[in-house]
Amino acid sequence: MNVLGQLAEIVGGEMIITGVAEMASATEDWRGRYHGAALCVTRPADTTQVSEIVACCHRHGVPVLPQGGNTGLVGGSVPASTGVAPVIVSLDRMRRIRSVDPVNSTIEVEAGCVLANVHDAAKSANRFYPVSLGSEGSCQIGGTIATNAGGTSVLRYGTTRDNVLGLEVVLPDGTIWSGLTGLRKNNTGYDLKHLFIGSEGTLGIITAAVLKLHPFPARTAVAWAGLDCPEDALKMLTLIQGTYGAKLSGFELMNRLQLDLVVKHVPQRRSPIETEHDWHLLIELSDSGGEGDLDEALQAVLEKGFSAELVANAVIAASEAQRAALWEVRHSVSEANKKAGVGLTTDCAVPVSATADFISKATENVHAIAPAASVVVVGHVGDGNIHFIPFFTFDAWNGLAERDALSLRIRHAVNDVAAALGGTFSAEHGVGQVQLAEMDRYKQPAELALMRVVKAAIDPKGLFNPGRLLPNT
Amino acid sequence: MNVLGQLAEIVGGEMIITGVAEMASATEDWRGRYHGAALCVTRPADTTQVSEIVACCHRHGVPVLPQGGNTGLVGGSVPASTGVAPVIVSLDRMRRIRSVDPVNSTIEVEAGCVLANVHDAAKSANRFYPVSLGSEGSCQIGGTIATNAGGTSVLRYGTTRDNVLGLEVVLPDGTIWSGLTGLRKNNTGYDLKHLFIGSEGTLGIITAAVLKLHPFPARTAVAWAGLDCPEDALKMLTLIQGTYGAKLSGFELMNRLQLDLVVKHVPQRRSPIETEHDWHLLIELSDSGGEGDLDEALQAVLEKGFSAELVANAVIAASEAQRAALWEVRHSVSEANKKAGVGLTTDCAVPVSATADFISKATENVHAIAPAASVVVVGHVGDGNIHFIPFFTFDAWNGLAERDALSLRIRHAVNDVAAALGGTFSAEHGVGQVQLAEMDRYKQPAELALMRVVKAAIDPKGLFNPGRLLPNT
Repeated sequence: MNVLGQLAEIVGGEMIITGVAEMASATEDWRGRYHGAALCVTRPADTTQVSEIVACCHRHGVPVLPQGGNTGLVGGSVPASTGVAPVIVSLDRMRRIRSVDPVNSTIEVEAGCVLANVHDAAKSANRFYPVSLGSEGSCQIGGTIATNAGGTSVLRYGTTRDNVLGLEVVLPDGTIWSGLTGLRKNNTGYDLKHLFIGSEGTLGIITAAVLKLHPFPARTAVAWAGLDCPEDALKMLTLIQGTYGAKLSGFELMNRLQLDLVVKHVPQRRSPIETEHDWHLLIELSDSGGEGDLDEALQAVLEKGFSAELVANAVIAASEAQRAALWEVRHSVSEANKKAGVGLTTDCAVPVSATADFISKATENVHAIAPAASVVVVGHVGDGNIHFIPFFTFDAWNGLAERDALSLRIRHAVNDVAAALGGTFSAEHGVGQVQLAEMDRYKQPAELALMRVVKAAIDPKGLFNPGRLLPNT
Repeated sequence: MNVLGQLAEIVGGEMIITGVAEMASATEDWRGRYHGAALCVTRPADTTQVSEIVACCHRHGVPVLPQGGNTGLVGGSVPASTGVAPVIVSLDRMRRIRSVDPVNSTIEVEAGCVLANVHDAAKSANRFYPVSLGSEGSCQIGGTIATNAGGTSVLRYGTTRDNVLGLEVVLPDGTIWSGLTGLRKNNTGYDLKHLFIGSEGTLGIITAAVLKLHPFPARTAVAWAGLDCPEDALKMLTLIQGTYGAKLSGFELMNRLQLDLVVKHVPQRRSPIETEHDWHLLIELSDSGGEGDLDEALQAVLEKGFSAELVANAVIAASEAQRAALWEVRHSVSEANKKAGVGLTTDCAVPVSATADFISKATENVHAIAPAASVVVVGHVGDGNIHFIPFFTFDAWNGLAERDALSLRIRHAVNDVAAALGGTFSAEHGVGQVQLAEMDRYKQPAELALMRVVKAAIDPKGLFNPGRLLPNT
């Protein structure tokens, strides 16, 4: 019996999809940028079926592509258009919340759970799962783990990696590794879960996880501040962290152009402050309980900022609706930029202390190559993660010659600055297929060699998500 | 030229120690329990020398044992007494604080830095490195990373693993991997640092690290509470976390016998509360700044505990000296137990919600085997990490037959309960040589196989700290 026949015996014929049109949502990314071919899409019901599927592919030497919500930004969950077409293993039927333990502050979930459903399940136990993304209504928890998703709450709660306690993984030969521990401390050999977190489906299929929960942040205060320069944002960061430490849960920077694009292109968005400023900060304090008024605390620290001439103007949201409105301005960035023109989004992180330097040098580099580009800056400056976006109007872009080559030169001009400052070309989006050239350009040979050794040890046949994450695999 | 000659050319003859007596502090652990033989101790001055030493050993097929302060509890940093004697690579000369970046909240240190010196360097920049251990005056930062050290601040700040951002590692063939990033976010391939953290010297030598710093906790409040049972401690934990979230920085449980042993055997220690209780809690709140009185906050939550009949009596420290005195009771545990008799220390962690169950079932199991044992309990209950210590007076112990076999049966009786509750036999001490049998007993074969595959990939000649961490390596 051929592979498809064997797979149908495992999951049932109706859970094997082979029509090109029916597979389109799995073989193409949501923005329509990357396309590929698959042998089929399989939809297993449980971990045992995943294991049997993988063992079958292993016997036949057929590549395997694990897939969650397919919401990534770097083409990591889309198959290649050349080479042996893989079996796509969709986790979408494995969406059970297995258990919530409020005393241990943990939740055990299957990989196909949509992130927003994890939020809801945690909240119903008065707990908080902090990883929050624009795609949280459709991305799956397994995908957020396989890509170590970031988002706007990393400053306070860390990335996905910091919120995973245990994993269940089907290894490339079909073996199930059940590491579903909910322990805070466990020093018994190599910490294998960290190998799979962020491995983008190249080492196995994550089928379930135990996640760390936090006390629910019942109280929040949000402010919007206008500033003269990124240096002042860093000084405000130090000031607030020194005073409120772990209460600082949001610290997002954008430049004037980014705010203008949001106001112009997204309905119902308006500038939170009336005066004009070159730079803008969204600041959030939150707390799970305790005494004292957070709005007053935020007011006090902003007043210190005024006195030190770090902040030019600021408003504090006076209601839940106003707090949401400030965050909506921040969350409208992707929509605005897509409507306004062509942005060459980068995803650098540098040491927090180097962010102002990064922005100024990257601007200089980009203008030297492409004088027609303007620069949009939006980022999680509290983590040193700046989305620096050389930006063109549609007209300006269409008037340019050799756009692909120019894009690449511009991206490198930005990423080179990050690298020189001890930074990275991919803070949160990952590598996928888009950043493979950057891996070769910026990673030490010793580090790439070590990654290859690990890949070859765990996936010796090289069947898992080939051609992704590591160049030339 | 032989190995010793080549090593002398690398580090200079005076930095090669070969005399058995001169090597004793490196070939024996600090408690005198484990002994072994070494070819020599080398004391490199920098990472280049470490690399050359390792490359030399790799060429000659000589085992390598990286060594920090040699303060571990499981014999992981002491060579074996059989097999090929290793070259011990001591990091003690590599003790530079390379840099502190207060805005990025990071510090770059060489592996041989004593932990207390890292604390001091951070504090001088008004920052805090949270990992704190009894041995902090002599343990080295490299050793704390290689063993993923825990301690009393894990509840608030995580283990060492959670506080390492970047590593520099000399790999088993002498290659230097320089991963000294100070980034909060970096999604560019497998996260290799997590392989080396907790690997107990079996995958390479950590030569330097970038550590995450935190705002200095300028304000603290400490209370001592008497309770009826561990269940009430868990309810207090939920109550305090719900109210004060990240401000809860210490939550340590001990039973009456543990407190009695401290009071009886350690000079100047006395019971913090006058009334007698079966169980005792040390509770610490801390904050880096902000408003409000932490003592009042602690008072308020203790009053809630009284009302709910979770707390029978409590005192709040009224001064820095009183706070220190409460912590001294907790930190006198090892000294007291050593003086009072023979304790078979275990290092289990279970889900926090299962700690009361663990204590009661382990007590039952131990009494079934050894009716003469009493039970000492002390632990980081906020992390689910309980040091459950079956305890004998010297007389009772000396009167027992076949003590080694009995010790093993007792340890298994305790660890079996942890395993059945989804727990671990080693929360923070590691595996070393002492817990190898437990690895075989409790780890899934699939997990051990995966660890062996990783070990073979990174150290194919099996030269690094052989016979440690993994059974039969």
